[in-house]
Amino acid sequence: MSEIAHRVSHRDTRAVARAATWIENRRPEAEPLLQELFPQTGRALVLGVTGPPGAGKSTLVDQFIRALRAQNKTVGIVAVDPTSPYTGGAILGDRIRMLHHHADPGVFIRSMATRGWLGGLARTTLEMTLLLDAAGFDVVIVETVGVGQDEVEIARLAGVTMVVLVPGMGDDVQTLKAGIMEIADVFVINKSDLPGAEKLQRELSAAFHDVKIVSTVASEGQGILEALEAAEEIRGSKAVTARTAEIWSARLREMLRDRLLDRVPAQEFTDAGIEVAERRTDPYTILHAWLKKY
Amino acid sequence: MSEIAHRVSHRDTRAVARAATWIENRRPEAEPLLQELFPQTGRALVLGVTGPPGAGKSTLVDQFIRALRAQNKTVGIVAVDPTSPYTGGAILGDRIRMLHHHADPGVFIRSMATRGWLGGLARTTLEMTLLLDAAGFDVVIVETVGVGQDEVEIARLAGVTMVVLVPGMGDDVQTLKAGIMEIADVFVINKSDLPGAEKLQRELSAAFHDVKIVSTVASEGQGILEALEAAEEIRGSKAVTARTAEIWSARLREMLRDRLLDRVPAQEFTDAGIEVAERRTDPYTILHAWLKKY
Repeated sequence: MSEIAHRVSHRDTRAVARAATWIENRRPEAEPLLQELFPQTGRALVLGVTGPPGAGKSTLVDQFIRALRAQNKTVGIVAVDPTSPYTGGAILGDRIRMLHHHADPGVFIRSMATRGWLGGLARTTLEMTLLLDAAGFDVVIVETVGVGQDEVEIARLAGVTMVVLVPGMGDDVQTLKAGIMEIADVFVINKSDLPGAEKLQRELSAAFHDVKIVSTVASEGQGILEALEAAEEIRGSKAVTARTAEIWSARLREMLRDRLLDRVPAQEFTDAGIEVAERRTDPYTILHAWLKKY
Repeated sequence: MSEIAHRVSHRDTRAVARAATWIENRRPEAEPLLQELFPQTGRALVLGVTGPPGAGKSTLVDQFIRALRAQNKTVGIVAVDPTSPYTGGAILGDRIRMLHHHADPGVFIRSMATRGWLGGLARTTLEMTLLLDAAGFDVVIVETVGVGQDEVEIARLAGVTMVVLVPGMGDDVQTLKAGIMEIADVFVINKSDLPGAEKLQRELSAAFHDVKIVSTVASEGQGILEALEAAEEIRGSKAVTARTAEIWSARLREMLRDRLLDRVPAQEFTDAGIEVAERRTDPYTILHAWLKKY
């Protein structure tokens, strides 16, 4: 076993942080490390927490961390913010959270912004969960912001997906973005002391038969253990297992695609673009020539 | 020349509509047709109209159509709505527009929703502009909604890009989404009779030196001809030519990528996903085996 793999599997914070940077920057060192670590994965509860802005996801995740630490469980957190490609930095709530748990070696927090490139984020997120799983964190939480189609692809995790909603969001369940609702294994009705909580519960029960529903008031610590238990219970279910296989299938496809394209020198694409723009040849002739060559 | 190519190049509305459906549905008939038609492209003014919701894009495009028809010019319109992946249908403004111009063979309108799949929309849009260009429309307008990163990739056209803004949007120019501002060849300050129009003009002039700025009140037909003239003038500029080459380069890369992946049977991806999910093997071992095979 390489030294870094050894250190990661002993939950050495600095080694985990370095490996996370390799993954995020698509460094060549990441792949052999993850290949080495892969047999040690599959033990953590991987928990995705997603939902529309304002649902209280960060507060909920913060309470999860406290509750798990009180049970002496270790927690790795990946915070993904695909909605702010231009900030290039950490989320505010995330920075506050880091301050809280900075000195606790049982908590590892990593935030990722998109830097204007959503495409590979689902894969990076998956590899981050592998890393933290292999590092021996008992629970790996992936918090994602946003409800667009691309965000759903990132929130659709190889694990249990928790969708956080609040009563009275101005929409009934029917009009909520379909994509994010369809990936839920557990619904959390947060701020459930607000008017409309029962109505939301009824609507969710009617629309989604096989999905667990838990009510929380995260800001006051209510319902936190129930939400974690619901996630743990559904963990080995058919739905979660099937989704995990689907996600691996999709990510493997992307990995193959990227590798195949790596074989073509970048200059070829640049030159071809100019040729077509100047109408010296048509795009389909170029494509057929490439397919013969590669 | 094939019969359909012949009919398209004579602007036969039904043939153009059928070819548009082939392009949108990725039918195998699309590619040989576009290859055949490609030498006839490059004549139309291809004009992208984009900007935040509420800027008045649809009204502006409607006025462009009227002004161009008054000059006896033909117009093809592609309306793209990447923000509503779940509607699956045409935009409301678009339907109204179709009613207006339904009987006019000099106007062809096609709307595309994303159907939950943004990835290929930039390519479909490009192929639609090729089709309408080859069909002999004097001006091809692509109207796109939305300001996210993916939408910018679609709005970034092989042609002139017009970004429509309104005064007093609550943000100054600095805080407007960077992505969409950076692809502008022409800024249109619409609703320029509103307070703040001069301030917006000053800020745009200071921030973007080489970009034309035109003021319009689209709802009253003011500034329409000036906006079209600005687009026509900038059409052959270095910036537009360079972007066109870049876009072709990116689209060719995608086309090659899709074709290379087509060689791998879908079942292989499904099986591999299950194997990894069940941890019978690691993803990197599978990847290396594929790279040897394909």
